[in-house]
Amino acid sequence: MVNVALIGHGVVGSGVAEILINDNALVNEKIKDELYVKYILDLRDFPDLPYSDRFIKDFNRILEDDSVRVVAEMMGGLHPAYEFSKQCLLAGKSVVTSNKELVAAKGAELLEIAREKNVNYLFEASVGGGIPILRPMAQCLAANHIESITGILNGTTNFILNKMIVDNMSFENALKLAQDNGYAEKDPTADIEGHDACRKICILAALGFGKHVYPDQVSTEGISSITLGDVEYADRFNCVIKLIAQACREDDGHISATVRPTLVPREHILSGVHGVFNAIVVNGDKTGDLMFYGKGAGKMATASAVSADILDCAKHLTSRKYLSWTDGSDDYVITPDKACRLYVYAKAEDYDALCKSADSAFGNCTVIKNEYSKEIALITANEPESTLREKCAALCADTVKILHTLY
Amino acid sequence: MVNVALIGHGVVGSGVAEILINDNALVNEKIKDELYVKYILDLRDFPDLPYSDRFIKDFNRILEDDSVRVVAEMMGGLHPAYEFSKQCLLAGKSVVTSNKELVAAKGAELLEIAREKNVNYLFEASVGGGIPILRPMAQCLAANHIESITGILNGTTNFILNKMIVDNMSFENALKLAQDNGYAEKDPTADIEGHDACRKICILAALGFGKHVYPDQVSTEGISSITLGDVEYADRFNCVIKLIAQACREDDGHISATVRPTLVPREHILSGVHGVFNAIVVNGDKTGDLMFYGKGAGKMATASAVSADILDCAKHLTSRKYLSWTDGSDDYVITPDKACRLYVYAKAEDYDALCKSADSAFGNCTVIKNEYSKEIALITANEPESTLREKCAALCADTVKILHTLY
Repeated sequence: MVNVALIGHGVVGSGVAEILINDNALVNEKIKDELYVKYILDLRDFPDLPYSDRFIKDFNRILEDDSVRVVAEMMGGLHPAYEFSKQCLLAGKSVVTSNKELVAAKGAELLEIAREKNVNYLFEASVGGGIPILRPMAQCLAANHIESITGILNGTTNFILNKMIVDNMSFENALKLAQDNGYAEKDPTADIEGHDACRKICILAALGFGKHVYPDQVSTEGISSITLGDVEYADRFNCVIKLIAQACREDDGHISATVRPTLVPREHILSGVHGVFNAIVVNGDKTGDLMFYGKGAGKMATASAVSADILDCAKHLTSRKYLSWTDGSDDYVITPDKACRLYVYAKAEDYDALCKSADSAFGNCTVIKNEYSKEIALITANEPESTLREKCAALCADTVKILHTLY
Repeated sequence: MVNVALIGHGVVGSGVAEILINDNALVNEKIKDELYVKYILDLRDFPDLPYSDRFIKDFNRILEDDSVRVVAEMMGGLHPAYEFSKQCLLAGKSVVTSNKELVAAKGAELLEIAREKNVNYLFEASVGGGIPILRPMAQCLAANHIESITGILNGTTNFILNKMIVDNMSFENALKLAQDNGYAEKDPTADIEGHDACRKICILAALGFGKHVYPDQVSTEGISSITLGDVEYADRFNCVIKLIAQACREDDGHISATVRPTLVPREHILSGVHGVFNAIVVNGDKTGDLMFYGKGAGKMATASAVSADILDCAKHLTSRKYLSWTDGSDDYVITPDKACRLYVYAKAEDYDALCKSADSAFGNCTVIKNEYSKEIALITANEPESTLREKCAALCADTVKILHTLY
């Protein structure tokens, strides 16, 4: 018998309890052993649940019970999730989590403790909800050098952008709809400003390239500046705007990492990822592009990923999984001046001067000109980003907006 | 040190040798041990390779060498691949393969021997080339009841259909182009008639639903009957035609399994899978739809999947992976009469009678009528398949073609 403790009985935690307890036959069949949820730690009471007697309020009962071999932390936030996880690992228990904030902040340290104690620290649910991504990257791509990771990692922003694209809804109205549907929090900052996607690309980059990436090392830009005008111009260039998180292997052991609204050409596989779905394209030197797609959030999808990690730990109480990376460094993440194609939007009271300067700087590109609103939009040729930005600076414009593309 | 033997030095085998020998540092880092390719079995000589001294022609040298713990079989075909794999497993060696024909025919038996001998039999490369699909299904979806598996599993037919759709090329010309590009064999029967996709859905169904499915239990239809006319009508219904392999959980412990050309609506994620790419949509009761996408064939992509399995075996010499299923039965695969929407094409010299009978049978559907060529095309409403087929039989037509849809 393998005893398990659950920390947190919120959306994800209650889903995990339901799977492990109500679907116990499936679970036991998978691990060829009996899995028992011994404790559920939550400050609230749940007297109506058939397993209400398993709820506790004192973390130390889990920590001090040597019969508990696997602990699932589903509290969210950094504290006390960090302390609880660390103490459990130090006590020789495997720990599983859906807490992306914690893994992005403290993953390297917690993985190192797990390694020392010969237990597992798994967090498949922290990226892409129910989408299998971390384990396939670590195991199935083991014979690859990963070149880049490109993803739509936040369902809320993808839902909002999708509503703008398909239904011509304003950003504000789409956000309100997302909140009304429960896809966005009352305070939507973490989603809208890209912080959630940033944490996830940190975890993917760490696993793919081997060193911890801290959220503040990632250049992060949200979607609140995207207008219906941008969406329409993108459409005329046969593109859709998505919040794209990307990490790339660069020269000399460095990587680059960004989160930003990006024009995705309609022939790109990521352009077909609609609504609250997430998708991650991993480019391996042997496999080429692989894509993993599915619901990036939701109670049962996320609970399914946490549960699979729990089963994996229960099956491998004494053997360790591949998942690991080392600590990063201040200069690990760089901003290289790579060749790229940019989307450029510009507006000027002096429309003639704007057009003239655009023709002079970007004469070889298709420029969409809108005399009525005194604005232009174009997608540049493929040149070093610094060169393109110099050209943009030379535009006679009152406003210039620049977005990256996946061309 | 872990000694490995490779059987077969063809396209995939030579790719695996390159990865394991030339990229040895990466490989050793992944398994935290030294992996050594001790033998490569092939009837041909490769005197110019730097590792030409490792080639042997006698299988028994591998079988009798107890220091060889992992054997990769990459010969293809049933014999002697079956005998070699069985003997290696019986001798307590883990076996890895890319041989879908063998796994589809003998998987249950070989997995059972592996279980008895406490070694692994892994075959990630047998489905979807470099796409991680079997391990994610077995491990990451462990807490799910899988409801259905739907895939584009054959790159050759997808390439041909894509050429028909995008370039308006005839089936014959597209096939010739695929052959000229090396995507199709000189004898393209296994691809074109769906046998290759059939073997792969057998493996996916066995893993997903727990019992072996034999290729002759799967209703299999190829793409050679698809005309440019069908492709054009599909386009007018906002669909693309794909060769879709599907297995579904049905009532009372049965499953259904089919391979057939299918109309895929453009809003379906599988409609965006172009060229030689493959993709598999797995529906789990907790995760909902997940999609796995990538190159389904090719030397290094497939070799990457075989190599990852070898590394997994080398890391887990004494512990077993989830992968397993039991033998099937004659009545395991059924053909239920489910509600569906069908594409119907009909042609008749007596065009007026055809139209009249179509209006009578399918009056509630949009019917595309082509008086010039005396043919019609329609997509039915959602009704039991038997009812729809009765209605089709009542059409006053000289020719009727019926295709399934993913509506």
